[in-house]
Amino acid sequence: MSGFQLHPQLAADTQRVASLSLCEVLLMNDANYPWLILVPRIADARELLDLDDGDRVRLWREIDLASQALRDLFTPDKLNIATLGNMVSQLHVHVIARFKSDTAWPKPVWGAQPPMPYDDAAVTERIAGLRARLRSSAA
Amino acid sequence: MSGFQLHPQLAADTQRVASLSLCEVLLMNDANYPWLILVPRIADARELLDLDDGDRVRLWREIDLASQALRDLFTPDKLNIATLGNMVSQLHVHVIARFKSDTAWPKPVWGAQPPMPYDDAAVTERIAGLRARLRSSAA
Repeated sequence: MSGFQLHPQLAADTQRVASLSLCEVLLMNDANYPWLILVPRIADARELLDLDDGDRVRLWREIDLASQALRDLFTPDKLNIATLGNMVSQLHVHVIARFKSDTAWPKPVWGAQPPMPYDDAAVTERIAGLRARLRSSAA
Repeated sequence: MSGFQLHPQLAADTQRVASLSLCEVLLMNDANYPWLILVPRIADARELLDLDDGDRVRLWREIDLASQALRDLFTPDKLNIATLGNMVSQLHVHVIARFKSDTAWPKPVWGAQPPMPYDDAAVTERIAGLRARLRSSAA
């Protein structure tokens, strides 16, 4: 995993939540949706196909962990899971809790609405809740 | 797998390409992008988390097969892989070959452009190519 550096755009758009076995778990700076981004700490990975079998299994397991944490904490109407990477080529996976009442529903979130900043108390509480849930699931 | 029926919207929007061990592989009726949709033949599945561990592993393997087929046939600049399901709740996974020259780049494809119909010869050739590639990879 030497040589891995989080892409500056991802660093600018997110807050760090946790480090799992393979991935950095980040919270998107957008209070419109509970929105996690998982970034495998593998230098130069761009596609899922770039990962070896063991890392791919770990990534799927961590997507499940993130999905379950969002489901447990927020009871969304739907989870959206995607790896696009057209703008930021570093491999990253979006795991987003969606609600019929959210601002973009039923459209995908990308480009639908300008990001809504969290206030400080809200982001601190959200990150603490996500950390606790990921820690208990990963144990 | 009894009780599985392909959602009528997915049936209307796609052509059948192949049946893999778990999933129906469908080609989206949109010549703007080589765009596959994988639908696990499991009644009432809505989320990845609804699948048991064995089916989840099969699904990831089939996503890899579809991704590799698109990569081998079209040499895309990027693969986009996503499960959204906000409109059609039946669990389905998009696997899309994206190009810097395509009509929606770098945006996600959903809602970006009206679908462009294939002509008959083009869709027949595309499906034949995909079938051959999936068959050789799945063997």
